[in-house]
This record gives sequence, C-alpha cells and structure tokens, in this order.
Amino acid sequence: LEAEADQQRGSAATPDVGIIMGSDSDLDVMAGAYDALEELGFAEQTDVENPPESRFTFESYVVSAHRTPELMTVYGETAADRGLDVIIAGAGGKSADLPNMTASIAYPIPVIGVPVQEKSVDSVIGMPTGAPLTAVDAGKSFNAGLSAGQIIAREHDEIEQALIEYHDSLQGGVGEVSKTLHDRGIDGFRERDA
Amino acid sequence: LEAEADQQRGSAATPDVGIIMGSDSDLDVMAGAYDALEELGFAEQTDVENPPESRFTFESYVVSAHRTPELMTVYGETAADRGLDVIIAGAGGKSADLPNMTASIAYPIPVIGVPVQEKSVDSVIGMPTGAPLTAVDAGKSFNAGLSAGQIIAREHDEIEQALIEYHDSLQGGVGEVSKTLHDRGIDGFRERDA
Amino acid sequence: LEAEADQQRGSAATPDVGIIMGSDSDLDVMAGAYDALEELGFAEQTDVENPPESRFTFESYVVSAHRTPELMTVYGETAADRGLDVIIAGAGGKSADLPNMTASIAYPIPVIGVPVQEKSVDSVIGMPTGAPLTAVDAGKSFNAGLSAGQIIAREHDEIEQALIEYHDSLQGGVGEVSKTLHDRGIDGFRERDA
Amino acid sequence: LEAEADQQRGSAATPDVGIIMGSDSDLDVMAGAYDALEELGFAEQTDVENPPESRFTFESYVVSAHRTPELMTVYGETAADRGLDVIIAGAGGKSADLPNMTASIAYPIPVIGVPVQEKSVDSVIGMPTGAPLTAVDAGKSFNAGLSAGQIIAREHDEIEQALIEYHDSLQGGVGEVSKTLHDRGIDGFRERDA
Amino acid sequence: LEAEADQQRGSAATPDVGIIMGSDSDLDVMAGAYDALEELGFAEQTDVENPPESRFTFESYVVSAHRTPELMTVYGETAADRGLDVIIAGAGGKSADLPNMTASIAYPIPVIGVPVQEKSVDSVIGMPTGAPLTAVDAGKSFNAGLSAGQIIAREHDEIEQALIEYHDSLQGGVGEVSKTLHDRGIDGFRERDA
Amino acid sequence: LEAEADQQRGSAATPDVGIIMGSDSDLDVMAGAYDALEELGFAEQTDVENPPESRFTFESYVVSAHRTPELMTVYGETAADRGLDVIIAGAGGKSADLPNMTASIAYPIPVIGVPVQEKSVDSVIGMPTGAPLTAVDAGKSFNAGLSAGQIIAREHDEIEQALIEYHDSLQGGVGEVSKTLHDRGIDGFRERDA
Amino acid sequence: LEAEADQQRGSAATPDVGIIMGSDSDLDVMAGAYDALEELGFAEQTDVENPPESRFTFESYVVSAHRTPELMTVYGETAADRGLDVIIAGAGGKSADLPNMTASIAYPIPVIGVPVQEKSVDSVIGMPTGAPLTAVDAGKSFNAGLSAGQIIAREHDEIEQALIEYHDSLQGGVGEVSKTLHDRGIDGFRERDA
Amino acid sequence: LEAEADQQRGSAATPDVGIIMGSDSDLDVMAGAYDALEELGFAEQTDVENPPESRFTFESYVVSAHRTPELMTVYGETAADRGLDVIIAGAGGKSADLPNMTASIAYPIPVIGVPVQEKSVDSVIGMPTGAPLTAVDAGKSFNAGLSAGQIIAREHDEIEQALIEYHDSLQGGVGEVSKTLHDRGIDGFRERDA
Repeated sequence: LEAEADQQRGSAATPDVGIIMGSDSDLDVMAGAYDALEELGFAEQTDVENPPESRFTFESYVVSAHRTPELMTVYGETAADRGLDVIIAGAGGKSADLPNMTASIAYPIPVIGVPVQEKSVDSVIGMPTGAPLTAVDAGKSFNAGLSAGQIIAREHDEIEQALIEYHDSLQGGVGEVSKTLHDRGIDGFRERDA
Repeated sequence: LEAEADQQRGSAATPDVGIIMGSDSDLDVMAGAYDALEELGFAEQTDVENPPESRFTFESYVVSAHRTPELMTVYGETAADRGLDVIIAGAGGKSADLPNMTASIAYPIPVIGVPVQEKSVDSVIGMPTGAPLTAVDAGKSFNAGLSAGQIIAREHDEIEQALIEYHDSLQGGVGEVSKTLHDRGIDGFRERDA
Repeated sequence: LEAEADQQRGSAATPDVGIIMGSDSDLDVMAGAYDALEELGFAEQTDVENPPESRFTFESYVVSAHRTPELMTVYGETAADRGLDVIIAGAGGKSADLPNMTASIAYPIPVIGVPVQEKSVDSVIGMPTGAPLTAVDAGKSFNAGLSAGQIIAREHDEIEQALIEYHDSLQGGVGEVSKTLHDRGIDGFRERDA
Repeated sequence: LEAEADQQRGSAATPDVGIIMGSDSDLDVMAGAYDALEELGFAEQTDVENPPESRFTFESYVVSAHRTPELMTVYGETAADRGLDVIIAGAGGKSADLPNMTASIAYPIPVIGVPVQEKSVDSVIGMPTGAPLTAVDAGKSFNAGLSAGQIIAREHDEIEQALIEYHDSLQGGVGEVSKTLHDRGIDGFRERDA
Repeated sequence: LEAEADQQRGSAATPDVGIIMGSDSDLDVMAGAYDALEELGFAEQTDVENPPESRFTFESYVVSAHRTPELMTVYGETAADRGLDVIIAGAGGKSADLPNMTASIAYPIPVIGVPVQEKSVDSVIGMPTGAPLTAVDAGKSFNAGLSAGQIIAREHDEIEQALIEYHDSLQGGVGEVSKTLHDRGIDGFRERDA
Repeated sequence: LEAEADQQRGSAATPDVGIIMGSDSDLDVMAGAYDALEELGFAEQTDVENPPESRFTFESYVVSAHRTPELMTVYGETAADRGLDVIIAGAGGKSADLPNMTASIAYPIPVIGVPVQEKSVDSVIGMPTGAPLTAVDAGKSFNAGLSAGQIIAREHDEIEQALIEYHDSLQGGVGEVSKTLHDRGIDGFRERDA
Repeated sequence: LEAEADQQRGSAATPDVGIIMGSDSDLDVMAGAYDALEELGFAEQTDVENPPESRFTFESYVVSAHRTPELMTVYGETAADRGLDVIIAGAGGKSADLPNMTASIAYPIPVIGVPVQEKSVDSVIGMPTGAPLTAVDAGKSFNAGLSAGQIIAREHDEIEQALIEYHDSLQGGVGEVSKTLHDRGIDGFRERDA
Repeated sequence: LEAEADQQRGSAATPDVGIIMGSDSDLDVMAGAYDALEELGFAEQTDVENPPESRFTFESYVVSAHRTPELMTVYGETAADRGLDVIIAGAGGKSADLPNMTASIAYPIPVIGVPVQEKSVDSVIGMPTGAPLTAVDAGKSFNAGLSAGQIIAREHDEIEQALIEYHDSLQGGVGEVSKTLHDRGIDGFRERDA
C-alpha cells in the first residue's frame, strides 16, 4: 500500500476529498459521505491511472490508527503532495484516534472528523489547543460530505451552486410534508402513510 | 444594527471571517479565535468605512439566538452578500442554538461552532442530516480560528504558510520542553520552574 | 406555505393551540399531544376556511429549525396575530432548537417544549435567563397537551372541568388495579392478564 | 401553619402566584422568580389580612416534600380554594419531589418546576403520563417567573404588556453591547470594561 | 380503597412487609421481591379477614405518587397502625417519588426503595438529610426482599435461619459451576450447555 | 488488630452498630452517622473492656477493602459473633468495595452502604441478585445512622421514640422557617439572616 | 473447591495465566481471553494431575466476589504458591469487585481487569492509590489475553514472537481490505460482500 | 531529539521503564509514577552516556500525539531497540491519544495508560480488539508505577521483594489508623489531628 501511495503522489489527477475510516465495519455509517459528495457532483476515483471524468473526485481507504499506525502516517504525510483538499475521517469506539492523528499529520489540510458511534464523539472532538480538527455529530457522515463541499465551494462556484440546489430541494420537501400534515390532520396524514 | 448590516452589505472591503457569540460573557472563551486569527496575520475590522490594511480581516458581534432572534436572522441572511468566507459562532448553555441557527441561515457559508461550555457540546454538534455545521471542542476557540484559516488557505498561500510557521514554532517548543525534562530529570525540571 | 400563513392571519376562527414538530418522523411521539387535547374536547382544525364546530381547536405543522428556518420564523412571528394561545413544539436530536427558537420568536405566547428523544432534553430545557420556555420530559407530549389545557383553563371553565374529569377517571383506574392486585395476589393478578 | 392556610382560604384577596421551595437554602436560586414577577409588576403579599395595593400579587413558603409532607399536602389541596393561578415550585437534590407532588395535589392548577441544582433536573421533569408539570432549566427561576407571567397574560393585558416591555429592553441591551463590541473591537471593548 | 385501609387498620393479623409499586407495569420487575420473601417463608396475604397460615406475611398494592397522591398518603399514614414492619416500594421513571414520599409519610417504619428502571436510581436514592430511606440497585427487587428479611431477622431467628439456608444453596451452586468450568475447560463447558 | 477482634468476640457488652470506612480521610463525611446515632441516644464504645453506660452503643474502624483485605475479612466474619445488629460501611472512589464486600462476608447482618463521593454511588449500590445491601445517597451518612436506628427500633421502643422526637423537632424547624419567610417576605427574611 | 486449590498448590505443572469471572453468564464475553491466549500458543489446563503438553498454559474458574467471597480469598491467596504469573479477572454489573479484590489479595501478581459490561468500567478501574490493577475496556477480554502475553513475553521469546506474528497478520488483513475498498470503490466493495 | 534517540538506541545501559506524557502540564499528575518507581528502588536516568548506578532505571519525555506526531512515532519505534521493558504513558483531554498510539507503535512492549484527567479515561481505555493497552484510573500514576514494577518483578526478585515491603508498610499504616480511631473514638481521633 505504501508503494501505491507513492505512485499516487506523482499523479496529476488526484482526488479532492479523501474519505478514510478505521474499519470496513464503519462503511455503513460512512456511506453518507459518499452520498453527499455524489449529490454535489463528485465521483469516486478508484483507479489511480484513470481518474473519472468528473471535475471533482474523492477516494476512500480503510486505515486503522491502532492496528496500522504506519499506513495512517503514510496517508497523512502524503496527503498534501497528492493534492487532497479536505479529508473526511471516521472512526468508532471510545479511542477514535484516526481523525485526530490524521489531522495532526496531514496538517494544514483541514480534516472533518466523523464519530462513527455516539461513544466516539468525545475522543474525536477533544483536540488540544494548537491541533485543529472540526467534527460533525455521531454518524452524520452525510453532513461531513456537505461540509467538505462547503470548503471546496469557497473556490468553486459549481459546488456552491450544487449546495444551494440540494438545500432548495430539501426545503421543498419539508414544506410539502408540513402542508400535508396540516391540511389532512393527523389521522388523514397517517392514512396516507399506511 | 440592521441599518449597519445593510450598509456593510454594499461595502467592497468586507471581512473574511465573522466571529459571533451569544453574549459578551462569552468573550473570554472566544478571545482564542481572535488570537489564532491574529497569529495567522488577520486583523480585526471595526470600522465599516475604513477597513484595516491587512489583506485578511475579521469582525465580531454579539448575537443572541434566544434574546435577539431577528438580529441573528439578519446577520445570517446578509453573510453571503457581505462576502464572509467562514463564520465562527460560539454559544454557551445547554441550548447553544446560535451556531446551529446561523449555519442554517447563512448556508452554504461554512460555520464552525464553538461550544463555550462543556454542557454546550451536544447542542452545538447535534445537527440533523442535511444541515451541515462542524464543531470544535468546548472552549477551543483558538482551534476554531486555525480551522477557519485552514479553509481560507485552500485559496490563499499566505495563510497556508502562516499555518505551517505556527505549527513549526509549536513543535519546536514541545521538543525543547521534552529535552529539558529528560536531561534534567523531574527534580531538575521542577527547580527550573520554581 | 407563507401564503397560507398570511391567509390564516386574517382568519377569525384560528386555533387555540398550535402543535409543531421538527419532522414527520416525530409524529408518533407527538401524537400524545393530539390525544390529550382531544380528551379535553379540542378538535383539530385542518381547513383554514372551515373551522370545526368545537369551541376549542388546535392545528399542526412540520417545521424544521435547521432545514426550514424561514418557515419557523414566519410561524413564530404570525402566532400572535393568528390568535394562538399556546404552542406545543417538539423536536428530536441533540440540537432540538425548534421549541427554543419558536419560544423566542413567538414570545410572549407560552411555548411548551417536548423533547422527542431523551438526548433532546438538555437542548430543549436549557434556555438562557430572559427567554422563557417550559418543558415536559422526553416523549411526554400527552402531558404537554394537558399542560396546554391547564393554561387555557385559567380562562375557560369547560377545560378546567374536562381536566378534572380526566383526572378522576385516571385515579379510578389506578385504584381498581390496586385493589385487584391486592385481593388476587400476584399470581391471581397475572392470570387475569394472561 | 395549617391554621394560617385555613384562614387564607377564606380570604378574597389571595395571591395569583405561589412560590414554594424545599428549604430556605434554596432562596438564593429562587430569588430570580421574585425578581421576574416584580419586573412584571407583581408585589409580594406577606400579610394575609392586608394585601398589597398591586393588582397582581404572589406569596412564598418553605415546604419540604420529605421533611414536612403534611404541610405540602395542605398547601397543594388548598391552592385552588385560595385562588392561586400558578405555582412556582423549586427543589434541590436528586429527589426533588416538591414540584412533582405539588403538581399532582394542586392539579389542575399549573405548576412550573424549578430544579434548584443541575442534579435535580431529571427528578423535576420526569413526570409520568397523566400527571402534567412543566419545568425550566436548573436554577432558571427568573424564567419560571416570566412563564408564570405568560400564563396570566392569557387573561390580563397589563401583564402581556409588561412582558413585551421587558423583552424590548432586553433586546436593546444586547444590541447595544453587540454594536460596542463590533465598533471598538475586542481590545477596545475590554478596555471599556476595565 | 380508603375504606379497606381503615378495615385493615383494626385487623390483628396484618402483614409484616408491604410491597407497593407505582404502576402494574412495574410488576415484572417487582416480582423479585415476592420471590425472595417466599424463599424466606413469607406468604402473600390477599384477604384482610382470612390471613394465610404462615407466621410471616406480606401484601401488595399499586399506589401512584403522581396519579393517586391521596391513596399514597393513606397507605403511608396507616402503615404503623396496621403493623407493617418494613415497606418495599418500587417506582420507575425519572421522578420515582413513591419510595421517597412513602418513607417520609410512613416514618419511622423503614422503607427500602427499588428503582424500577436505571433512570430511577437518582430519584429514589437522593433523599435529603433527615429523611431516611435506603435503596437497592435498579431492578434488584429480589435483594430488597432479602434486605427486608434481614431487618425482620433481627427479631426472628426463623428468618435468620432461612437467610442462611438460602445463602448456602447459592454458594453451593456457584462452586459447582466453577468446578465444572475448570475441569471441562471452556469447550467442554459450552458443550454441556448446548 | 485481629487479636483485638478475637477479644471482642467473647465480650458480652458488644456494640449494636458498627461504623467502618475505607480511610480516615472519609471521616468528615462519615461523621454524620455518629451525629445521627448520638441524636438517637447511642454512645460510642471505644474500650472493649469498659463499655459506656448507654443502653445502645456503636464502634468505628478504618478498614480498607483494597489495602487491607484481610482486616476486612476478619471484621466481617466476626461481626455476628460479636453481636453487631447493623453495619454502616462507607467508602469513596469509583471502586468503593468495602460496603459490598462487608455485606457479603457479614451476611446475614444488614449492611447500609454510604458512598462517600458521588462517583462511589454506582459501585456501592450495584450488588448482584442474591447479595443484599441497601444504600443511602452520596455523603448521606446521617441518614444511614437514622436508618440503622429504624432497624433497631423494630425491637426497641426507646429508639422508635427517639426517631419520632427527632422528626418532630425537624418539622417544627421547617414550619417556623416557612412562616417567617411568608410573613416577612423575601426582603425581610434576608435582612433577618444578615 | 478449597481442597482442589490445596492440591494444585503442590503441583509443579501449574498454569501461567488464571482466568476468573464472576458468573458463568460472563463466559461469552470472557471467551476472547481464551482465544487470544490460544492464538499465542497457550493451552487450557483442566486436569490438575495431567497438564497439557504446551509449554504455556492457562486455567479458568467462576468466582463471585459477592456470592462466594471465601472462594475468591482462597483463589487470590494461593495464586502465588500455585505459580500463576498473571490473572485475568472479569466481572459485570456496577459493583464489579472481583478484579479489584483479587488484585488486592493476589498482590504482587499483576491482575488485568475486564469489565464485562460498559457499566462495570468505573468499578473495575477505580482502585485507590497503593492498590495496583490495570484494566482493558468493557468486553475487551481478547486484549486482556494479549496483554497477559505481553507480560509473559518479557521473559519468554516464544511469546514475543507469537505476538509479533499475530500483529503482522492483523496488519496484512487491514491493508488488504483497504486496498480492496479503494480499488473497487464503495459500490464494488459492497457487491463483494453480498 | 531524533538524533538523541538514535544515540540511545546504541546504548547498552538503557532504562527499563519509559515515562512519557503529552505536556509538561501533566507533570504534577505523572509525578506519582516517579514516586512509585523510586519507592521500588528505580533511579531516573537523565544522561544517556552516564547511567545511574541503580540496577533499575527509568527515563521521561514530553511527547504530544497531536502536536508532535513524528516525535511520538520515533519514540515508539525505537523503544524495543533501546531496551525498554514497559512504557507508562499519560495524557489529558478528551482525545488522550498518546498512550494508545504509543501502545500501537511500540507493540509488543506493554504500555500502561494513565488518563491525566477524568475525561481522558474513555479515550485511553477504549482500544479496539487486537491493539492491547491496559490502563489505570484517572490520575493514578502511582499505581501505574507499581504495575510497571509488577511486570518487571516477573523476572526480577528484587522488585518483587520491594513490592511486598511497600505493601506491608501500607497495611501497617492503615491498621494503626484503624486502631487509633477505634480506641480514641471520633472525638479523640480528631483532637489528635488538630
């Protein structure tokens, strides 16, 4: 895997967002980040040589802070050279160190931590002064994807536009539900669902 | 204050980072954000007409979600027009709604939430799916300032450079302390401090 | 939805109690408020033009603080003009801001907050000094309905009477169960249930 | 004390709001309720025979659920006859039963519970279905006073008006602080405080 | 029910232990107290006129502090006259006031509180100085039955003997399991269970 | 110390209540048990040969479960022979094992556990089924003393009487404070205290 | 069982690691310790007379601190004579005293505590100064087995080697998963699992 | 510092125990580890070239996981070559990653984690399966020192003997305090302290 990392380092067409997680058992929770990025027009890059056609891409790896500390160090240290703009890092358990250590090693690339379980929140958010990382709530990897989009949108209007479109459709949906509940009343609304 | 907000809206020389907090009693905690931004070369802009000479600037307001909801709405709605790139929002108490509501209203501008007290963490971090906000740990407004810098550094190499310089000096300091502790031993180290 | 709100504003026959919730997924929990109000003789008003015949009415909407902040603001600001006497507001998650923000915007109309999940209690109850809201326990929307009735009963003896009748039947039920358990013993009591 | 309660029962000029607390050591926390009610124009009634001239009045007692259960029962049972409209009940400790028991006994008079300590919140808020009580956050007796005012304001426009005036002055204060912080910057603002 | 309580008051053959619980939904948890008392030779007394032949008896009632405060008061006040020696009181929810209020009213009869849910522990155990109650852990009504036996055993050697016999059989059981696990090893032990 | 324990075993005039604590640093918290027992007419027995004249006595020892497990075992095993009726055992820390282990060893003598710190509550109360112990709240050693008195009062009317007298004086005190607060109002009451 | 313990005491071929647990219901959680030790080449010794051929062995017993305190004392006191090098002790509940008491009695043999449930962590880890015990996280008995191996590896290179081999295979596994996730992408990876 | 680490790697006279901590502000808490090791006869080695005469030695460094990740990696990777037998690693905050990461990197050398603050416990103890680390309670660095001694005592009888002597003196101290409290009674005992 280190060899592959070296190879990527030299590649011009590197992904913009890196998604890493401590175990493949975190994949169900972390899938929200994929969904959000795809919602915003990003595509997953799986082949180092042949990047997807999409202007914006992301990649994903399993990296365990406690079981594969060397792999984590290599990933963090090469992130800047490989051109990543934001890293989304998720980990579970009470010692969810992957986001924190990656933020320290990949600095100054911004890292968004995703606590995969409720009990991971304290460990992810509790960085000491001088070591920045921002976090979303437990399991909210979808929001981490949106937040990564918000950062990239500072430079790229397409992403800004995609964020706004997503929001408009979201608000429309809530508004419609609200109107239906009001106009049908609770009994009518529930019948509709049945 | 609304009038002033309107005025700023038209101003070309708007700040890059907005710091808002729920009460002036939060200022001691939030001062870390000022310190971090100044460390990175930002200057505070206090006069709408006469911006400071620094290339990067920030501003600050007291805005209470529960006591002045209208002021909060105006601030959030005008943030994009006024050219803010990142908002750092701090609030205390168990219903620390200011960061969350500002993130919802100012969307898609990224908002970094600062829980001013330990008991504010849950309320700040707990956003529902579709409403992005990232948070730092309780009281870590200095890290929020660094994180704001990391976002702006995506576009601006000066800030990237300032972040790296800050980190180097931090690491040098820790290294020196470590060497002193080792070489003098605990008793010698403590004498030095006395 | 704003148009509809405007329309209601002018309507003479507005509801007495407004029930709002952050998502239609909160409906199962919030249904207790409907049950309590119906127990006290209130009827749901679903058609703005044609109110139900009942002397006391309530309405319901889905309003999300973080996904539809504008809708929330409109609802809160028009509550007084539309003649609402009490608002019951339920929200889930750790940033359950809907009750709090509505209490701030609809002030001085009393708002009873319903934390839809246990983890929502802190966020709902934790209002700062000067911003009143009272709350019931997690999921206790039925009690919120009774409390709304207690407020309206200050003015209306029919509701006071309905509250007393409900209480009498409740006490009778407990008394009967108690007597059965005592007289049959645990084994006899359980057989009865089987 | 029971004799006195009997006497009050017959008095026409009874207070509108009753403030009770589990111990006189709770008085520092509960003083906020006095302040809020006085802010709204209520006066304390201390002499059963000679009520104060103010249109709206309140009274206060120390009543311990666990040390003086009989006194609590008498207070709750006579509350309706004595003409109380709202009871504000504060208690500390982990078994803060006074608000809950008073709500059950004085029903259907609305009771606003004030947890005097953080650890009292669960005990105060946790009422079972069918036994209504609403609560404010730990120590927020000032808000309990405002909430009592909100209930009485359903009938009395003077109190509604007093609530609005209080709110306007509160918002003005926050706005002024906000403007000062912005215009002077953090250093100038702090100098002002020194 | 009050009439029945009066009747029991005059009865010579009253039970030694009273088991009360806040709701019949607590019966599954509270059944452990029945089991423990029966293990020690107590019998349930269900007919006031015709006590069981056993030397030691207990009774049970459903009594809700918040829904039937009067019934609770009658039960507590008549406990001494009716000859109860110990009361086991169980309640669920976060405001589990039944054990506490009964301890205050039935004083100086000892009351053993049983928190029916984990979240009831704080409310049950948190009595203020001067108002004694002792508690077992959440759901441990069996231990409450044993503890009631320990109190009665101060006077009655039969119960002391029954407690010792129960303990001996318990220790024998653990010893046998231990020997089996050791001698068969984990695989052999598990096969036995299969 | 074992020798002394042996000596006491043969003594006719043994104490009724044993107070043990994990460390002499617990003495400030545990002093409440001494106060309560003295309030009820118990006297401390310090000389094995020369018991005090009081009919009811107690003794005290420091016994550490983790630092002196043998001493704890000796104390628990000899408790029955030495004639103790109740043991009050206090311990601090998160592994507050002294009350639990003593309850297991001294069984079937009832043990009242006193968590010396808030963080000791779980460890003290959490006994498994079959191993009875009842507990008071953190730091409430005074109540443990009263509870010990309640157990002994099952047999001894003098203690029953002393418990009732204590309670009457307690209620009188609360009643007086309540009347003073009501009649003077909050301002008058506070002046009195000044 | 005491007889058996005596017998073992004289045996030359005693196990290196003792696994004890508070109840056979803890066996599912504690099985991880067996797995880890077997991974490292240890074998379970079930017959005192006929030890297995493996150079390194372990044994297991059920020992309850609260139900069989004497058995626990015998086990701890004989551990040194019987030649145990490390004890792994697991217990559940909030008063998980077995690891702590065993550490105190078997001292200076190192004891690794395994909290069988999340709620057992505080009780297991909270030893006072002077009474050493180290703990793993709730349920992590596999890691306790590895930690026992790490201690024994200080003396025995075979175990050191087995630890390294285990780690290498673990890292290889994570690396392979990581590569598969990256190269197939999330959709491809999930198909593979289906 | 890396240069120095290289130098040590070649040194024959390396320390047995390494003490590392995340910040020199942790030194007050971590000093207990020094005290315990010195109690057992260890000496601090501060000069790489000139080790102290004591047979057993320890060293100490400040290493920050989040601020100096490279230094941490170097320390962990060289630990085995430098001949360390046990590492005691302390860290504060909610993301106390130093013990965990060091355990992962220095594996298979056993690492004893010391949570410097209560809020660090979860992060230190929560290692995933396959990554062993054992922990003491918050702030209990003295016990970590004893535990390190227990590990080294597996090979070295001098340390075993020192552990036993320490324990004997500890037990003697508790026994003496216990006798004094009993024989003087609480009042006499307190006078002694005054």
